[in-house]
Amino acid sequence: MTATYADFSASFAVPSARLEGFIAAHQFERPTLVIDLDRVETQYRALATGLGPAAIHYAVKANPAPEIIDRLIALGSHFDAASRGEIELCLGLGAHPDTISFGNTVKRVSDIAFAHRAGITLFAADASEEIEKIAAHAPGAEVYIRLLVEASGADWPLTRKFGTTRDTALRLMAQARDLGLRPAGLSFHVGSQTRDPAMWGATLDQVAAVWQAAEEAGFALDLLNIGGGFPAFYGEAIPHPTAYAGAVMAQVAQRFPEGIRIMAEPGRGMVAEAGMIAAEVLLVARKSEDDLHRWVYLDIGKFSGLAETMDEAIRYQFVTPHDGEATGPCILAGPSCDSADVLYEKRPVALPMALKSGDRVLIRNCGAYTSSYSSVGFNGFPPLDVVVI
Amino acid sequence: MTATYADFSASFAVPSARLEGFIAAHQFERPTLVIDLDRVETQYRALATGLGPAAIHYAVKANPAPEIIDRLIALGSHFDAASRGEIELCLGLGAHPDTISFGNTVKRVSDIAFAHRAGITLFAADASEEIEKIAAHAPGAEVYIRLLVEASGADWPLTRKFGTTRDTALRLMAQARDLGLRPAGLSFHVGSQTRDPAMWGATLDQVAAVWQAAEEAGFALDLLNIGGGFPAFYGEAIPHPTAYAGAVMAQVAQRFPEGIRIMAEPGRGMVAEAGMIAAEVLLVARKSEDDLHRWVYLDIGKFSGLAETMDEAIRYQFVTPHDGEATGPCILAGPSCDSADVLYEKRPVALPMALKSGDRVLIRNCGAYTSSYSSVGFNGFPPLDVVVI
Repeated sequence: MTATYADFSASFAVPSARLEGFIAAHQFERPTLVIDLDRVETQYRALATGLGPAAIHYAVKANPAPEIIDRLIALGSHFDAASRGEIELCLGLGAHPDTISFGNTVKRVSDIAFAHRAGITLFAADASEEIEKIAAHAPGAEVYIRLLVEASGADWPLTRKFGTTRDTALRLMAQARDLGLRPAGLSFHVGSQTRDPAMWGATLDQVAAVWQAAEEAGFALDLLNIGGGFPAFYGEAIPHPTAYAGAVMAQVAQRFPEGIRIMAEPGRGMVAEAGMIAAEVLLVARKSEDDLHRWVYLDIGKFSGLAETMDEAIRYQFVTPHDGEATGPCILAGPSCDSADVLYEKRPVALPMALKSGDRVLIRNCGAYTSSYSSVGFNGFPPLDVVVI
Repeated sequence: MTATYADFSASFAVPSARLEGFIAAHQFERPTLVIDLDRVETQYRALATGLGPAAIHYAVKANPAPEIIDRLIALGSHFDAASRGEIELCLGLGAHPDTISFGNTVKRVSDIAFAHRAGITLFAADASEEIEKIAAHAPGAEVYIRLLVEASGADWPLTRKFGTTRDTALRLMAQARDLGLRPAGLSFHVGSQTRDPAMWGATLDQVAAVWQAAEEAGFALDLLNIGGGFPAFYGEAIPHPTAYAGAVMAQVAQRFPEGIRIMAEPGRGMVAEAGMIAAEVLLVARKSEDDLHRWVYLDIGKFSGLAETMDEAIRYQFVTPHDGEATGPCILAGPSCDSADVLYEKRPVALPMALKSGDRVLIRNCGAYTSSYSSVGFNGFPPLDVVVI
């Protein structure tokens, strides 16, 4: 069952009116992501209200558009950086190094040294070799240990790529201390697009158990990084961001000591709803006369911005000039000569029967994980264009 | 079972000696694809010998490095272009428009018009709407109809994204003729990385049946585009390219009229073995003390060049400084904060136990479908660097 934004959040503005208006008034020569900066600000304030004392570290990887970073700096946001490139971006726009955490658990040695010279003092780690690297190249830094937590009910559960177990976490804290670092706390990720805040409970229980074990082992932890997982609207109801963040923080307060520093890293939950892609239908085809499904080919695909359709994980919503007319099932594909560049096939998309080559298609809530995933020029198509309004 | 290149092709030069020598003599600040142009030329000549009278249309999307296009122009190659961008690349380097086919069955109207103005006269199509677009914007052009063929024994079978059925193909030819186009022939794709030329037989049977039906319907076809599928060496034995191409052409000769024009579109089979990536280990970790597997994180991943590890489809071969020492199973992952950026997990890779952060890792036979797939800057990492020697 799908729901409109208004169904579950009558008090929150429909996010795309300004975007749709701008797009309607402009022509684009190629697929273009339009970002509404004011919508980012609205979302930041809504999340900040719910998160209360927690510091927001915007996950830059979700959308590194300089205008977004600039606005968030002005609003007082902090930043979670995945690389030297993202750190340079934030510093170059005036972010204070104290507000940037180097949150990738897999860092190049020269990038650790760069971050240290730049004044960044907070690093993530989940492995012994990483602790050694940080101790050698960012002496005295604070580290938090990322935990591997059991899968929650997220729409897109994480793999085991990041995080470590309880016992290894305790060993890493001891190693960090022995090497002159300050083991400050723990981090985790509840899973991308965790729509129901109640899903956080079991994960927070696991993290709180490790926190307590660390305290019993003599570590004076004072930093909890609750990561991301803040949802965006892709057609299934989600709470208002303030209510969502408040519900998460209430669960945190039940399980962790008062007065500790709390960080949250919304990425998708900050910018997805602030972006809309203007695309175009290139071709509508049937493979044979008796095919029930049409194939609809857009001028944007998996390699030019819609990488999150991988395994059909994220299901975008589409606006067409024929909405309201009769629809039929479509397999949706991108423009490249790559047979893997199919967006939705297992679960086809219902689109108007009248859809044809040249029609403009808007893709809603595309502000996160689109422009940055875009390839440099696969099949000779330029990267996704970005316009910030 | 794996085989070395020499096992199956003693007469063909080991492809990577020059590349390994160059890489050993240089430092790279970030992951770098090194392309050996002479190796491209050797491969071109080997394929051309086997293909005999067929025209080679290099699939530019496999690797659009200008130096490769330039060398292939000098060698007399033709080109298969997927977009206006690729057409402009080839024309800009001096390719004659007669040697370029616009092989994407999904084309933007303005790109068809551009190609027509530029003098390109050969277009692919597999749908009625595409025939209309070509007739309107490239009047009088030649078209070939792409057929949907049953899956062969390819390592990476294609989806149903491209091609159409026999009956629809015949209708499209009639439509093309009625609209003033010249329906010249048929195309198909046997599937990426079809290692055994015998696998072409069943597919060629299907195409020959449609060819015959078209002749019986009064179409004077004279063009057969056999597409790609020419394999590269990724650890499993493949024939020498001349022998492979010759075996394919022998099967074509058995099924199609003498004297027709034949096009072949090697991409991977032209450039994969001419490229090697110099990468680096960023981290080796165990999630817990009793884990059998190590996690090895490289500075290159799914979003910075190794997109073809999707579903673990293409399995690259690695060279490390510790080769010959004891090995153990590794899950291989990329450097981004994206949990989907895992290269090989279902079938782990055996790598030396001594492997550690900072070690250089070479990835063999990476010349195709790497640099062009690379993201513009996901997680703040720059696109894959390319050096041509």
